[in-house]
Amino acid sequence: MLPRIVLDDLRPRTPSGAFPAKAAVGEAVTVSADIFTDGHNLLAASARSGKAGGEHGRDPVPLAHIGNDRWEATLRFEDSGAHEVVIEAWTDRYATWRRDTMVKAGAGQDLTTELVEGAQLLASLAPLVDQSRRSLVSDAADSLARQACSVEVRLNAALDDAVAAAVAGVVPPGEVTSTATVTIWVDRPRGLFGAWYELFPRSEGGFAGVVKRLPAIADLGFDVVYLPPVHPIGRSHRKGADNTLDAGPDDPGSPWAIGGEEGGHTALHPELGSFDDFDSMVAEALQHGMEIALDYALQCSPDHPWVREHPEWFHRRPDGTIRYAENPPKKYEDIYPINFWPAEESERVALWEECRDILRFWIGHGVRIFRVDNPHTKPMAFWAWVIPEIQGEHPDVVFLAEAFTRPKVMAKLAEVGFTQSYTYFTWRTAKVELVAYGTEVTSGRSADYMRPNFWPNTPDILSGPLRDGPLAAFALRLLLAATMVPSYGIYRGYEWGENQPQSDTNEEYRHSEKYELKDRSWDEEAPLAPLLRSINQSRRRHPALQRLRGLQFHTGANPAVLAYSRVSDDGDDVVLCVVNLDPHHVQEDVLTLDLGAMGMPWAEPFHAHDELTGATYTWQGAHPYVRLDPAEAPGHLLHLRAGG
Amino acid sequence: MLPRIVLDDLRPRTPSGAFPAKAAVGEAVTVSADIFTDGHNLLAASARSGKAGGEHGRDPVPLAHIGNDRWEATLRFEDSGAHEVVIEAWTDRYATWRRDTMVKAGAGQDLTTELVEGAQLLASLAPLVDQSRRSLVSDAADSLARQACSVEVRLNAALDDAVAAAVAGVVPPGEVTSTATVTIWVDRPRGLFGAWYELFPRSEGGFAGVVKRLPAIADLGFDVVYLPPVHPIGRSHRKGADNTLDAGPDDPGSPWAIGGEEGGHTALHPELGSFDDFDSMVAEALQHGMEIALDYALQCSPDHPWVREHPEWFHRRPDGTIRYAENPPKKYEDIYPINFWPAEESERVALWEECRDILRFWIGHGVRIFRVDNPHTKPMAFWAWVIPEIQGEHPDVVFLAEAFTRPKVMAKLAEVGFTQSYTYFTWRTAKVELVAYGTEVTSGRSADYMRPNFWPNTPDILSGPLRDGPLAAFALRLLLAATMVPSYGIYRGYEWGENQPQSDTNEEYRHSEKYELKDRSWDEEAPLAPLLRSINQSRRRHPALQRLRGLQFHTGANPAVLAYSRVSDDGDDVVLCVVNLDPHHVQEDVLTLDLGAMGMPWAEPFHAHDELTGATYTWQGAHPYVRLDPAEAPGHLLHLRAGG
Repeated sequence: MLPRIVLDDLRPRTPSGAFPAKAAVGEAVTVSADIFTDGHNLLAASARSGKAGGEHGRDPVPLAHIGNDRWEATLRFEDSGAHEVVIEAWTDRYATWRRDTMVKAGAGQDLTTELVEGAQLLASLAPLVDQSRRSLVSDAADSLARQACSVEVRLNAALDDAVAAAVAGVVPPGEVTSTATVTIWVDRPRGLFGAWYELFPRSEGGFAGVVKRLPAIADLGFDVVYLPPVHPIGRSHRKGADNTLDAGPDDPGSPWAIGGEEGGHTALHPELGSFDDFDSMVAEALQHGMEIALDYALQCSPDHPWVREHPEWFHRRPDGTIRYAENPPKKYEDIYPINFWPAEESERVALWEECRDILRFWIGHGVRIFRVDNPHTKPMAFWAWVIPEIQGEHPDVVFLAEAFTRPKVMAKLAEVGFTQSYTYFTWRTAKVELVAYGTEVTSGRSADYMRPNFWPNTPDILSGPLRDGPLAAFALRLLLAATMVPSYGIYRGYEWGENQPQSDTNEEYRHSEKYELKDRSWDEEAPLAPLLRSINQSRRRHPALQRLRGLQFHTGANPAVLAYSRVSDDGDDVVLCVVNLDPHHVQEDVLTLDLGAMGMPWAEPFHAHDELTGATYTWQGAHPYVRLDPAEAPGHLLHLRAGG
Repeated sequence: MLPRIVLDDLRPRTPSGAFPAKAAVGEAVTVSADIFTDGHNLLAASARSGKAGGEHGRDPVPLAHIGNDRWEATLRFEDSGAHEVVIEAWTDRYATWRRDTMVKAGAGQDLTTELVEGAQLLASLAPLVDQSRRSLVSDAADSLARQACSVEVRLNAALDDAVAAAVAGVVPPGEVTSTATVTIWVDRPRGLFGAWYELFPRSEGGFAGVVKRLPAIADLGFDVVYLPPVHPIGRSHRKGADNTLDAGPDDPGSPWAIGGEEGGHTALHPELGSFDDFDSMVAEALQHGMEIALDYALQCSPDHPWVREHPEWFHRRPDGTIRYAENPPKKYEDIYPINFWPAEESERVALWEECRDILRFWIGHGVRIFRVDNPHTKPMAFWAWVIPEIQGEHPDVVFLAEAFTRPKVMAKLAEVGFTQSYTYFTWRTAKVELVAYGTEVTSGRSADYMRPNFWPNTPDILSGPLRDGPLAAFALRLLLAATMVPSYGIYRGYEWGENQPQSDTNEEYRHSEKYELKDRSWDEEAPLAPLLRSINQSRRRHPALQRLRGLQFHTGANPAVLAYSRVSDDGDDVVLCVVNLDPHHVQEDVLTLDLGAMGMPWAEPFHAHDELTGATYTWQGAHPYVRLDPAEAPGHLLHLRAGG
């Protein structure tokens, strides 16, 4: 039977409702529901949260009615891991009695029965009230029952706000209640906020080389250093430079063609260094306040040990050969996809556990962040199993999905457990696209379970205005990625403005680092290094730039000028970005700011301090004039402060 | 474990997913889902439908991929009752093989292995194929395996479209599939489409008087004659004319103050007639192609037999009296609300069953349509129980919710089972409101489970332009109600343009028929009778006006001119309405029609026949000029036909 009080449409939730929604430690999480019942009684509701399967908090947070039968409360979680929020709703008999009695008193109606009802009600609530305020409530009950006094005197005590406060949240035993539970996976803060830097360790001289670069990367303000696969690379059908089929003896091959005679996913490429070198790199990164992220790429070169030891984990063709990866007419003979559904269930279990154990192995070497290669070509069921399996043991593990795939698939990967997702940001370049997509990924139901990580480039993708583009194009795309959402990343070479596409129709890089080593200077300052440093410092300084929800776009007539603001949970920190989307020309605009959304005054002056240039403007009103010269800066990154 | 193929977001569905969606016999129902899997294999999906708990159809309907991983099929149901639609998805191995082989053949790649794989695949599918086409498939398998011929010759047979058609929908045993079920409650057509007419039988001289009016009502084109409660009326605290407290001995009282010494909800008011009279009226209505709908109003006058026999079914105050209805400071002493949650569970069960048995009683007297009074003041749990209880016995029973309440509550009543709902149409009068609300109730998730029934007036509500309004206001609101959605109704007096509000602040009628008898002529033709007749005939003639989904608004600059079209499921019947929202002045506009949405040609002439005036216009292009004179007609009701 339905409960008497309807408790519907609980948020946050994932689209299917079968997986936990997402939050991060310290993040303000709005929990909400439709709550209503028949008749005119007033309701009350509260949320109690705690670790899944454990105790729920003793101090319930009241839900407030925000209109249209929607109720909400804001919660914060202190620990990572699986959490439950139990929402309870009940008839608030005291509030109902108080409202009706006050209305009747105002209308001069007879209150005899109300006095008796109130006395009975308060007497029944008093024992349930917090000790310190119990006498207040029982005194009010006594007052109502005291026949000698006037009605006004008798009511006075019972209608007092202090009595209302004392009984607020008290649920009489047996009172009709409804209960529903929201499940939320809570990540550590890095699951929500972070600046990523991707580099190929082999171009730096292996792990020891990476260690040498860590101070410079930390100086640029990055939080995560992500490395493509560090495992042995197959020799069979190894790809040569520019993805050619005839690799020479010195061609290093693609790091994603994992596995050689030296080992597979738990081995290190001998030229990168030893496990000691690897462990030192991980430790050294931590010393610099950064973390090493590894690539989790579940595929094998023909020389991977699994091919020999577990042929049942691969697709076999009628001629007995193993099926290599292909997307007809393209062939990838250097890679064997894994058959995640072998004929025998025991084989499947063994394979999935072995895949899980790869993660455990690197977790054992101090890694807590995995960028997952092509997750959409592996079963959704595998991710729905392995991510909770790992995070159950290590709630601090972060999984970034390289899901440049169809929208429904990307969303489902997020729903089943991926902490973050690369998005379509790379291909959203026009103002109208950025407004629509930025709104989509930072609001509504999407933000309940999917966290974007904006990458202007990757080793696979040099797109949009970056292709043959000027350095200003790199600057503006960086500013967008780093300020529209809390997590972003770049692949090394970006800060140098590397801009040569493979061809007019291929958005990969020419001379891609995937197939050859790159020698880039670390002695010389990269042209975008100052901007990177400045943006990353602003990101760390401003809570406004560290939350996902609440990206607010502002209007302007110029399609080459994009303005958006972000505000911290407490409303105290306000950042307004105004970006010139045209890397070639000066652009001007007169903005129409939603000052209310930013908590800025409509009629008094307020300060806008540009953290990229150091300039401070004093603005007044909703229509500031802006002039953006791409030769100077990609835009304004403005810290707004009220006060003349 | 998640299935290999993801099957998500199945539609139709209700907001919580815990109740069946709604359809009507013969209605085109689009069943859809997100369906995708990892990798590049092609998928197939089908829908099989049948009575809940029974056999599902042997002939599955294939779902088509409509883009963005969304799949859909259109179904129709032949019987009323609870239905299930089982959606199955599987890897289409033949289609995948065919696609890949054709691409590789086009690229000139070696096909040796493809031939072997294809032969194995087709040989395994052949036994599963329909007998008549089995040899086609096994021949194709043989052809692929025939070593002597050229690859082209061997492939020729296997890639043939006839083979593809033969194996389409064939699921090899053990093939990975995913299954999900959509539950749909199917109403008889009257659940979707009907014109209702409400009258007070006591004003017509009781049931015998109603019988005399049936030919005239049928002549106006109505389908349902709805009667306010026909039960004995209480004498205690009976209301006098205009809702006054001092009823005289001749005041008839409100029919909603149910129950007197003559009986309660299963008794007839003695002045209306006997059960024989009632049964004759029900039968006579059927003779005229109409049905009698009764009011189901679960409340009691102080004189109702339940008050004496079941005091535990009412709310008792501390002084021992029964609590009457009130909404402080308003009091309704002539009505006792029922306590649906008595202290003892056995009392609750007895009460709920007694309430159910009222419905069974009137069903026994041939009634199949109930208009439910104030359903939002009774527990949602009661409706979620009683409606399936009754419809399980009598799937042809229709429940109309008088839910002029908050949006979430109205939606939930629809979700838990009400067939139709009065809506906010009564208060949506401006063009922008009608466009927004019309779109809301006829599209998207709302139309999956909630069916609007638009009433321009009720005995309780004389609102908007009708208040002191001219007859033209009544005409335009009638045209809107009757053509925007498939179900609508009016309360007698409307056709006479009765327009006196109770006061400036009270939207009830002055001299409300709820408290006194009304004497309206049946000899004289009511001023709106010709329009009613014309509109109701058009509604019956046009399938376009009998479906809920697909209300399409068209653009125009004049805020007093509203244009919208509706198209039948098969696209053959197209109706365009152009309504003048201003009852006082001639209004003109140049419309911008979405000709594509109506299947009309962009460049050739098409005909627009006005079924209200008989005029036919020949229009060409998307921008017809319209001139609407409220003195002549409330607008155009145009039947569009292509063809010069």
